[in-house]
Amino acid sequence: MEEIISYISIGGVFAFAISGALTAMEKRLDIFGVFIIAFATSVGGGSLRDVLIANKNVFWLIEPAYTYVAIAGTVFAVIFRPKLCKLKQALSLFDTIGLALYTIIGVNVGIYYGLPGVSSIALGTITGAFGGVIRDILVNDVPLIFKKEIYATISIFGGSIYYLFYVNDMQGLWVELLAIGIIILLRLLVVKFEISFPSIYSKDKGN
Amino acid sequence: MEEIISYISIGGVFAFAISGALTAMEKRLDIFGVFIIAFATSVGGGSLRDVLIANKNVFWLIEPAYTYVAIAGTVFAVIFRPKLCKLKQALSLFDTIGLALYTIIGVNVGIYYGLPGVSSIALGTITGAFGGVIRDILVNDVPLIFKKEIYATISIFGGSIYYLFYVNDMQGLWVELLAIGIIILLRLLVVKFEISFPSIYSKDKGN
Amino acid sequence: MEEIISYISIGGVFAFAISGALTAMEKRLDIFGVFIIAFATSVGGGSLRDVLIANKNVFWLIEPAYTYVAIAGTVFAVIFRPKLCKLKQALSLFDTIGLALYTIIGVNVGIYYGLPGVSSIALGTITGAFGGVIRDILVNDVPLIFKKEIYATISIFGGSIYYLFYVNDMQGLWVELLAIGIIILLRLLVVKFEISFPSIYSKDKGN
Repeated sequence: MEEIISYISIGGVFAFAISGALTAMEKRLDIFGVFIIAFATSVGGGSLRDVLIANKNVFWLIEPAYTYVAIAGTVFAVIFRPKLCKLKQALSLFDTIGLALYTIIGVNVGIYYGLPGVSSIALGTITGAFGGVIRDILVNDVPLIFKKEIYATISIFGGSIYYLFYVNDMQGLWVELLAIGIIILLRLLVVKFEISFPSIYSKDKGN
Repeated sequence: MEEIISYISIGGVFAFAISGALTAMEKRLDIFGVFIIAFATSVGGGSLRDVLIANKNVFWLIEPAYTYVAIAGTVFAVIFRPKLCKLKQALSLFDTIGLALYTIIGVNVGIYYGLPGVSSIALGTITGAFGGVIRDILVNDVPLIFKKEIYATISIFGGSIYYLFYVNDMQGLWVELLAIGIIILLRLLVVKFEISFPSIYSKDKGN
Repeated sequence: MEEIISYISIGGVFAFAISGALTAMEKRLDIFGVFIIAFATSVGGGSLRDVLIANKNVFWLIEPAYTYVAIAGTVFAVIFRPKLCKLKQALSLFDTIGLALYTIIGVNVGIYYGLPGVSSIALGTITGAFGGVIRDILVNDVPLIFKKEIYATISIFGGSIYYLFYVNDMQGLWVELLAIGIIILLRLLVVKFEISFPSIYSKDKGN
């Protein structure tokens, strides 16, 4: 089971790296720029989490596999770029799996360090969603998740559910998998039915 | 007295959150984006300080009240947005109080860790002024404080005064309150009389 | 010899500070903004490195000389701005020396903490090249090194060479100087002959 999670985690890094590389290539960065953006997208959220809790060495410094997978994702994206439009659904699925898994990993880190619930959930969201924020800052865009997608909100919601399970003594692998499943399901529904937040702005443009 | 400072600190977080939320709404971000910007504005400066000194867990992870106050500030800003123009002076006052208090808190952290004076003063300025820098980076603006306001400079000045008091054995609550008062007063004067730096650029546009 | 390296390191900070100040003045920031950009450019890469390894206190907090040199670099750039065009080659040389030295310092930090090779090399590149990335983010540009210069790549290459020396039991000051020399030489060649990466994009603009 550990192994399955480990494989999924690697899959998440790979998908995040591809998402970063595609964004960087849209901006026509050179190959090094493409790799840095891909790398920052795939490990940025977890790095910010580790930095905020002052973990001795962020995770990818200790385990080089993450760097290699990010390199592989970049190479993959550069080579298969013309065909990746067709792959977009597969990528979106990977990205969603990554979001779900990283969220639960992040909440677990908060629980492990005995942090309050709201902080643990925040760590989950940071781990899952902030690689994309860092990607968008590096290519000088307003972060996408602030604008149109219900993305981080699902991470917050799923992390909250998982934390509620935890404080009610429901723990263990099946609870993790349940929470991961809920996040994936919600995200797929949101994408499928193009659900978005009701606007907090009044209709008139002059506002 | 401790309690008074605690209340003011919460007031500062609240004001900074509102300032962040207003900026985000100008950019027409969705409700989640508005909250994240508000949160980053209110805790960003202190987080950067804690990260630079590798404090085990940044302050808001341990004390959930900051997150709740940031949420409250966001909700307040969203609901009262049409009326907040009239409140701008009140907000500016809160923001100034926050700047002053955060600056002194930051300098105290540097002193506590035995850092050199210039580093302690830098930590004060980072704590007081860099929430706004992070806010502006997230919404893809050149940070406001780099451009037109004498804001961080007052923080540097007030922090320096406070540190000078400290090395001359003037310590204790009244010295803190004096330095906080100096920062608030200077900021109010700068805003009132629209004082700005003399330009370092020559007049001709071709320069 | 230690002293020579220390002088070069100070020279690197000075050159990086000038590079940051010049960028900030192009954006016509006020004097405070110019200083902050200069400071972030000169200590940003090393700060990110120290934060990622959760070093207790980033380097410039403990050693105030870095801050003073950054202030001196800013003042120098502001005063001699009209003449700095002619100085550009000298600056580029300093910048290159800084890149080379910082890269090797960063790799050494990774080795010291027993990190894997790929992580140590990443730390070297972050130390050498990311001050410039932070500079460009703060002034709201897409980081220059992502776009047109073979800059960070040379840092990666030189850091890799140095690490290969290290694992083959070639250690000591002369190995460091050799690696530093290789980086400086490569960078000078790239600038001199205006070498750039072959594009990963097809020629047609519609791509």
